[in-house]
Amino acid sequence: MAMVNSNSLFSLNGQPVADSLPLSLLSDRGLAYGHGLFESILLNQSQLRLVDRHLSRFADGANALDIPIESTVILQYVNSFVDQLKAESVSEGVVKVMVTAGIGGRGYKSPKRVEPTVICSYSNLPEDISYYRTQPLSVRFCQHRLSANQPLAGIKHLNRLDQIVARNEWRCENYDEGLMFNQSNCLVEAISANVFIKNNSGQWITPCLKEVGVAGVMRSVMIEEIFPACEIPVSISQISRDELIQSQVLLTCNSIRGLASVGSMYNHQNQWVKSLPIDQQTLMLRKKLIELYPQYQ
Amino acid sequence: MAMVNSNSLFSLNGQPVADSLPLSLLSDRGLAYGHGLFESILLNQSQLRLVDRHLSRFADGANALDIPIESTVILQYVNSFVDQLKAESVSEGVVKVMVTAGIGGRGYKSPKRVEPTVICSYSNLPEDISYYRTQPLSVRFCQHRLSANQPLAGIKHLNRLDQIVARNEWRCENYDEGLMFNQSNCLVEAISANVFIKNNSGQWITPCLKEVGVAGVMRSVMIEEIFPACEIPVSISQISRDELIQSQVLLTCNSIRGLASVGSMYNHQNQWVKSLPIDQQTLMLRKKLIELYPQYQ
Repeated sequence: MAMVNSNSLFSLNGQPVADSLPLSLLSDRGLAYGHGLFESILLNQSQLRLVDRHLSRFADGANALDIPIESTVILQYVNSFVDQLKAESVSEGVVKVMVTAGIGGRGYKSPKRVEPTVICSYSNLPEDISYYRTQPLSVRFCQHRLSANQPLAGIKHLNRLDQIVARNEWRCENYDEGLMFNQSNCLVEAISANVFIKNNSGQWITPCLKEVGVAGVMRSVMIEEIFPACEIPVSISQISRDELIQSQVLLTCNSIRGLASVGSMYNHQNQWVKSLPIDQQTLMLRKKLIELYPQYQ
Repeated sequence: MAMVNSNSLFSLNGQPVADSLPLSLLSDRGLAYGHGLFESILLNQSQLRLVDRHLSRFADGANALDIPIESTVILQYVNSFVDQLKAESVSEGVVKVMVTAGIGGRGYKSPKRVEPTVICSYSNLPEDISYYRTQPLSVRFCQHRLSANQPLAGIKHLNRLDQIVARNEWRCENYDEGLMFNQSNCLVEAISANVFIKNNSGQWITPCLKEVGVAGVMRSVMIEEIFPACEIPVSISQISRDELIQSQVLLTCNSIRGLASVGSMYNHQNQWVKSLPIDQQTLMLRKKLIELYPQYQ
């Protein structure tokens, strides 16, 4: 795998940018207000994996934020960026795509004609990716809570201070992920992943994200393809903190790392809560995921 | 007043930027996550008005978002920018200052050593500023609600999608401002301003912002200086939608426009709710504000 400096490869509206950026970027609504969206897409063997699902989430988000852009335009820019990477002998890594509401408007009001900005950037795969895919994770309950915000729920927008505040609750290397709860103490998601539990009765559940949370691409793959292919029922429901603590299994997933299982839980005071095993169904789910999507092996 | 293109004057970390920007800005945490703060400061007779209060809010916000920056550094950069404006014969307008958590980190996690980015930009005074200061405004209730988020309440961070969604609820020119409510239907603020009401019993109240909202610079001037100087009591309390509708007077304020009075309220279905007079106490407050801060006349 070619190792490229993660700050060295970019494109702006489909054009490679090598040296400098236009001054207008300082007036971009993405920077000013977080008025935009992003997707982190796995680049594997020069292929953008699950790109249709990422584009579909872009479409939902663009609709919610009044950003008029066709998926075909985003795809064209992203494909050009992959060609740019190929020319640099880069075939593996993460392609991050940001789509913002561009420049203009008077304060918060969008301009009459929004001209979106599309930024592609490359970074290497996370160094610890094989650890995540194979070793049981250690997770910590975050003190910072998510608030219900139905019009913004599900989409991957650029307003990510909740995740920043939660992630900066700890500085040590003891934890691989943080679990985030809503104001009613129900589990919503991990900071950078969605979650599935197998509860005390053996039922698989993932939290409902209609009021708050990011509806992840890998979450939808799990719900729509992997659980059904394994003939394991999974439901979307509320998960109380008690139900989480009593759960038999806890999995996290995202589109870069795939599926990861949690081995131990700690609360926000860094007290050990419980250890969790890797069960047979988890092994089945992981095997099926790798069978259908070998990029996650 | 010199009229300068609002996109033409910038500084980055205290240095004027004339032509282009460093590529690193595409990796800035301000753009990626809205991990940063901003202030819009009134430039009047080449003076940054109420700059101490703006710097104080920067300090509170930087603390909340783990951005290590001294107020003296921000002030130095902003003062250099004012010199830059003077050299262009610009003495009136709005100086917007953004302070972000800079580049780096792994995903949401801040880098070990945060090196903040400070961006100054200039824009002309809003064209309608004298209208706001002298004519009764027409305001509309926003349908989009604010959610409680105590750790982020009060500060002026770069996560402004709530304001964007609320402001984009209407496209017509009928309304000058939108009023925003929390999940319990209590008044929080206007989209770009704080609010004061004189309720049905003649008491002046401004909403409590400990759970949600932006604690404005002009709001603090009103509470700490203008109301006391007029010997008019004002309290900080919850304001229900009913109390708002029954109020005798409604004022909005921000540090660019100063104080504005509302003449008519409409609900989110664009139905007329009520008309409001300008009372003697409002005239006293406005007179006192202009006496102490002539920039708002």
